[in-house]
Amino acid sequence: MAKPPVLTPRAEDFPRWYQDVLAKAELAENGPVRGTQIIRPYGYAIWERMQAEVDVRIKAAGAENVSFPLFIPESYLRREAEHVEGFSPELAVVTHAGGKDLDEPVIVRPTSETVFGEYMAKWTQSYRDLPLLLNQWCNVVRWELRPRLFLRSTEFLWQEGHTAHTSQADAAAYALRILHDVYRDFMVEVLAMPVLVGRKTVDERFPGAINTLTCEAMMADGKALQMGTSHELGQNFARAFDIAYLDGEGTQQHAWTTSWGVSTRMMGGLIMAHGDDAGLRVPPRLAATQAVVVVIRDEAGVAEAARSLVERLGADGVRVVLDDRTDTSFGRRATDWELKGVPVRVEVGPRDLANGQVTVVRRDTGERSLQDANSVAATVPDLLETAQADLLATATAAQEERTVDAGSTEEAAAAAESGFARIPWSALGPEGEARLARSAVSVRCLQRPDGSVPVTDDEPGLVAVVARSY
Amino acid sequence: MAKPPVLTPRAEDFPRWYQDVLAKAELAENGPVRGTQIIRPYGYAIWERMQAEVDVRIKAAGAENVSFPLFIPESYLRREAEHVEGFSPELAVVTHAGGKDLDEPVIVRPTSETVFGEYMAKWTQSYRDLPLLLNQWCNVVRWELRPRLFLRSTEFLWQEGHTAHTSQADAAAYALRILHDVYRDFMVEVLAMPVLVGRKTVDERFPGAINTLTCEAMMADGKALQMGTSHELGQNFARAFDIAYLDGEGTQQHAWTTSWGVSTRMMGGLIMAHGDDAGLRVPPRLAATQAVVVVIRDEAGVAEAARSLVERLGADGVRVVLDDRTDTSFGRRATDWELKGVPVRVEVGPRDLANGQVTVVRRDTGERSLQDANSVAATVPDLLETAQADLLATATAAQEERTVDAGSTEEAAAAAESGFARIPWSALGPEGEARLARSAVSVRCLQRPDGSVPVTDDEPGLVAVVARSY
Repeated sequence: MAKPPVLTPRAEDFPRWYQDVLAKAELAENGPVRGTQIIRPYGYAIWERMQAEVDVRIKAAGAENVSFPLFIPESYLRREAEHVEGFSPELAVVTHAGGKDLDEPVIVRPTSETVFGEYMAKWTQSYRDLPLLLNQWCNVVRWELRPRLFLRSTEFLWQEGHTAHTSQADAAAYALRILHDVYRDFMVEVLAMPVLVGRKTVDERFPGAINTLTCEAMMADGKALQMGTSHELGQNFARAFDIAYLDGEGTQQHAWTTSWGVSTRMMGGLIMAHGDDAGLRVPPRLAATQAVVVVIRDEAGVAEAARSLVERLGADGVRVVLDDRTDTSFGRRATDWELKGVPVRVEVGPRDLANGQVTVVRRDTGERSLQDANSVAATVPDLLETAQADLLATATAAQEERTVDAGSTEEAAAAAESGFARIPWSALGPEGEARLARSAVSVRCLQRPDGSVPVTDDEPGLVAVVARSY
Repeated sequence: MAKPPVLTPRAEDFPRWYQDVLAKAELAENGPVRGTQIIRPYGYAIWERMQAEVDVRIKAAGAENVSFPLFIPESYLRREAEHVEGFSPELAVVTHAGGKDLDEPVIVRPTSETVFGEYMAKWTQSYRDLPLLLNQWCNVVRWELRPRLFLRSTEFLWQEGHTAHTSQADAAAYALRILHDVYRDFMVEVLAMPVLVGRKTVDERFPGAINTLTCEAMMADGKALQMGTSHELGQNFARAFDIAYLDGEGTQQHAWTTSWGVSTRMMGGLIMAHGDDAGLRVPPRLAATQAVVVVIRDEAGVAEAARSLVERLGADGVRVVLDDRTDTSFGRRATDWELKGVPVRVEVGPRDLANGQVTVVRRDTGERSLQDANSVAATVPDLLETAQADLLATATAAQEERTVDAGSTEEAAAAAESGFARIPWSALGPEGEARLARSAVSVRCLQRPDGSVPVTDDEPGLVAVVARSY
């Protein structure tokens, strides 16, 4: 008799499966105020790893971390017309504080271009002060009508980079550098997600930007998730906040600014890109726990052998934990580690150990193998790298399989029912984009035919990647 | 002719000196909304180091990081009577969001005992679920009437730990463990601050706590700064939020909870404990930049020698930067590194280098020495440890010198004009405490005569440490 599944199967109800994974793998749950979220220890440990890997890349790109305030005067937002129009419907407003009504209400930051603009203006006098490359890790609030944990929450955690440059070319190059060297590199190399990069169409740009670059990933249901964006803001915010500098000739000039961010939304992407019907599958380079050594039954030196294995793996730099909770059944614990997606499970039991062996289970493939108990530790680092590569290869193959070339708007709309469609931008255009929108299909990005990022929307031969999206 | 001082001398105007250091060392400045703060790159890099050192100790104490929401329903706060009374005057309230007035206003968390309580209740069924040891790094908001950067800001960054236990003894032991193994250990070993530990009097307890433990430090003006607190909350929050479990006999019991936190206030403590008239002095173990190699003039292979020195120091694990900005005068750069308090400065110039030498300057003592250019790298790690020990020794000696034993409330009040006073708690008592309060002097903590933490306020022979405070 088959066991009832722990999770709703993906094919049966993908959104329900997603909710099941969040709950059963103890990743996150709803907070008390609508749309807010609680990230539980196992989920937060993964987020900490994401932060560490992104942060090291941000610092390598020369940006420095800072902390700007949660509260922004309402008046700041109004200084950039498109920006205030874009964000007004989502704002949370503090009207009362310290026991009385405030003279000027303050908003809870939905993003911080305005307040960074105000202070960048103070800190920028000469061209020698530029580029000014800043970043912060913080929480932001956007009031959501249809919240979903990690994907669309009223409060979320993110990093937001804000930079100022002496020329449009320098700003454009830096926005692209962040997209490639920070975001895409992290997503491909660590998250094992084969993200597409490209430009957003005018309709899909960030409010106040002259160009938005994006990383787009395919989820297991064929829908797209925007995983991170990098914006050229032109001189819009520099003019609104007077970020100006004296150039080499002593002439006052406005700076060119950028902003860019990734958020806890990537947690949702991770789940929906790699998860299967048994739960999460965490890529080894990301995993806070890369391997678990499970004591099946504590007899005949099993616990001791398991502890010594944990020590050896730890000494080799593997992030490993010991599971010796033998008062819980082995089956239940094994299911739990599968739910949590820990990449490698080493099962130590009395019968195998009597033969000098342990069982190694790969979470990504489910493959089990008996291995020599004395030499297994040395094989785990390679196995982790193999699993990392295989997860990326599997996701890449799935994405390619579900991406079709379409010749017309109708074909593109039909293809977007189950995946991505690629259609010449000259065949689609803003009119086709508007028609697709009626069936909830959007242009995720514009790319060159070779998948690289175009410099303008007008380059000949551009391809629009269209899909339904989260 | 003496140069005018870069900073207001401490002896002339200590609060002004503090503001000068914040501005000139580019640590922090006021945000646009009253009482909020902006932490600039150099200040934030120090805070990141504080976080890393505290976080590793929190994890070693078994607690796991999570993320709870910024917004808390107003009704939650009202469930614990003392808690709501303590925090109501300082709350910021969101009344309007997503384009309309909210049915129930939400508060911006001033601290999160209530919302942790609500979810700990959901996650706790059996004694096997306890202890539940959680922590979060986040921002909190307390509307301040007299804000001061780092010391008393409307929004600040902190960690808040929240734990639940099966017995009062276990909760008490954990609150004490956090005080000793996380806070005091970090403050003494990394911040080089000889903090006193003890119990708060009933009047000084956290709203809703049955016991508050504290780390208190002496600033250079003789005033006290509360650097971190660890609270036993008894069963107050467990009853208010029904954090209950089935014990081994199958009986329903309420848990015993604790909470504990340190914040960006420690940045203020660092400045005021170690700073001198030339600026900040950062203890080497804390410093994000432990050493700077300064190119005096770029001639005769100086820049090359400096770069190679930076490489060697970096390879030895020293956090080092190169200063080759020779378009700025050497004197100005030297002053700037002193302001920023970088522990060791290595000056490389053509004249010394021709003799195979460089100049090494210790920031803590100002001591300069000529050293062999080829072997200097190997001496820096030891020099950093010496400077670390000396900063602690200097601060300890200063604290002891400014601490007097007082026999009466009057003597204690007089002594608190310039430092700490120790007075038998039996001689002071709650009445004496109230009298001291009229001259803005408070009991910072109750200690045993040997400086250890008492188990109750009633132990015979307790000493009250009294001082003026920030």
